[in-house]
Amino acid sequence: MVETIVLKGTTVANKIKDELKKELIELSKIGIYPKLAILRIGEDPSDLAYERGITKNADKIGLDYCIDVLDENVSHEEYVENLNRLNNDESVSGILLFRPFPKHFKPKEIYNTIAEEKDVDCLNSRNLGKIFEGDLSGLTPCTPWAVIELLKYYDIQMAGQNVCVINRSLVVGKPLSMMLLEYNATVTICHTSTEPEKIKKYSRNADIVVCATGNAKMFDSSYFTEESIVIDVGMSMDEDGNMSGDVDFDEVNGKVPFITPVFGGIGPVTTTGLLRNTIRAEKRKHNLG
Amino acid sequence: MVETIVLKGTTVANKIKDELKKELIELSKIGIYPKLAILRIGEDPSDLAYERGITKNADKIGLDYCIDVLDENVSHEEYVENLNRLNNDESVSGILLFRPFPKHFKPKEIYNTIAEEKDVDCLNSRNLGKIFEGDLSGLTPCTPWAVIELLKYYDIQMAGQNVCVINRSLVVGKPLSMMLLEYNATVTICHTSTEPEKIKKYSRNADIVVCATGNAKMFDSSYFTEESIVIDVGMSMDEDGNMSGDVDFDEVNGKVPFITPVFGGIGPVTTTGLLRNTIRAEKRKHNLG
Repeated sequence: MVETIVLKGTTVANKIKDELKKELIELSKIGIYPKLAILRIGEDPSDLAYERGITKNADKIGLDYCIDVLDENVSHEEYVENLNRLNNDESVSGILLFRPFPKHFKPKEIYNTIAEEKDVDCLNSRNLGKIFEGDLSGLTPCTPWAVIELLKYYDIQMAGQNVCVINRSLVVGKPLSMMLLEYNATVTICHTSTEPEKIKKYSRNADIVVCATGNAKMFDSSYFTEESIVIDVGMSMDEDGNMSGDVDFDEVNGKVPFITPVFGGIGPVTTTGLLRNTIRAEKRKHNLG
Repeated sequence: MVETIVLKGTTVANKIKDELKKELIELSKIGIYPKLAILRIGEDPSDLAYERGITKNADKIGLDYCIDVLDENVSHEEYVENLNRLNNDESVSGILLFRPFPKHFKPKEIYNTIAEEKDVDCLNSRNLGKIFEGDLSGLTPCTPWAVIELLKYYDIQMAGQNVCVINRSLVVGKPLSMMLLEYNATVTICHTSTEPEKIKKYSRNADIVVCATGNAKMFDSSYFTEESIVIDVGMSMDEDGNMSGDVDFDEVNGKVPFITPVFGGIGPVTTTGLLRNTIRAEKRKHNLG
């Protein structure tokens, strides 16, 4: 048995929100009011739940926002028109698009329509290109940023450490790997074409393991050692219909020194990333950061 | 002892050059003549040697080229002007800039001045961004492309295999890692902040090891196993003033099943990548590929 420390994301998120709140007060003194624009299609319950999470947090720190709701039968052209309206709206600092889009939409075309400087979800090719080039001075993708912030908050060293990232998407695995390289970590990228036995070899060999497969409870303690730092980014429905992380928390708890919880882990930090990017976007417009 | 097969890059390069030669003949039949423009500053001997290598190969396959030589005291502005002239020259398909630039130049500004569609060395942020996004349909960076082509030629499987890449630059390690992910390999990226003992752990654990540190003879057989496929991208001066790869070839030979040679390894394939990109660039202009 190992004494397991639970890496609470809520604690990290609260600290960041306090800082952002102060930042907004300072900005208001010089007449700057960052605003997040949300573009939603229809009334999907999971979209609404996500939206509530964001607006609740925006309210907490005093960040302005507006929500534009389009009819669920909106055409690609109308959608892009609405996006361009937000691009051109001087009062809007950052734009958040709810995804997945309707099937007939062209996601990449939409991503590259978002104004580079308002792209708070880091979907645009140019912003992703910057991350690839190791330039973290701009808008960084929220989930990878949240992982890094959590590690920093808990003083977990990245330089010279082995990190195993189990995800190769443009939203999580690839940008996170590039960001970890900037922090001088050695990075292994595993994915759906990596056999579970090989994943195990890498995860057991790593100092830090970032699980982001979306397979509920895929990772039991056989994937880890008594020195593993386990970061769980996954969130999906398990066999019993309950929300679960990638990691079988109850089984792994007590066998590794550090682990993020199923709820209140990376998720809340990710949301603050969106608020932070919105404020950063507005500050960059005024050459303030 | 293991029977070592030497993975000759010259054989791969010759096959590719034969194909490119045929392609140029076909293109000439419809009046298309791709042309590579080289922009060189001064008469640096290593630049001249590199240039001879390229022009010799271009001559062999019948590819047009032009060489613009600027005075070694050229200003940044004049250099960019000359680059823009080549960007706007309809007869130029691809542009190769000799580097490193004079110290007072701004490399990134220059990279992003190169017309995206003529960027045969893949230096431009947009072209690098495409590689990051897994889009290999455009102009791919020559060294990573050469590694992949060599593996393909020798029927070395990448899917599901562990590849250890020892380099994190934008010219080699990062794009190669992204390209390997597209071929479904599991990738570990090691670098200057990875301790040699940790590199050893990863390289011994990998099916394929790509050495690109520029440290002559850094890798002896202790870094490999009797199953390692060793790809040496490095080229530097050893203690005795002789050109050498990253791998101590003589010591490793006979201990691994596959290895690239010091001369005639990845280098010649890389050069053909430049010729190939020039032809591809011209073909893409005419919507031919």
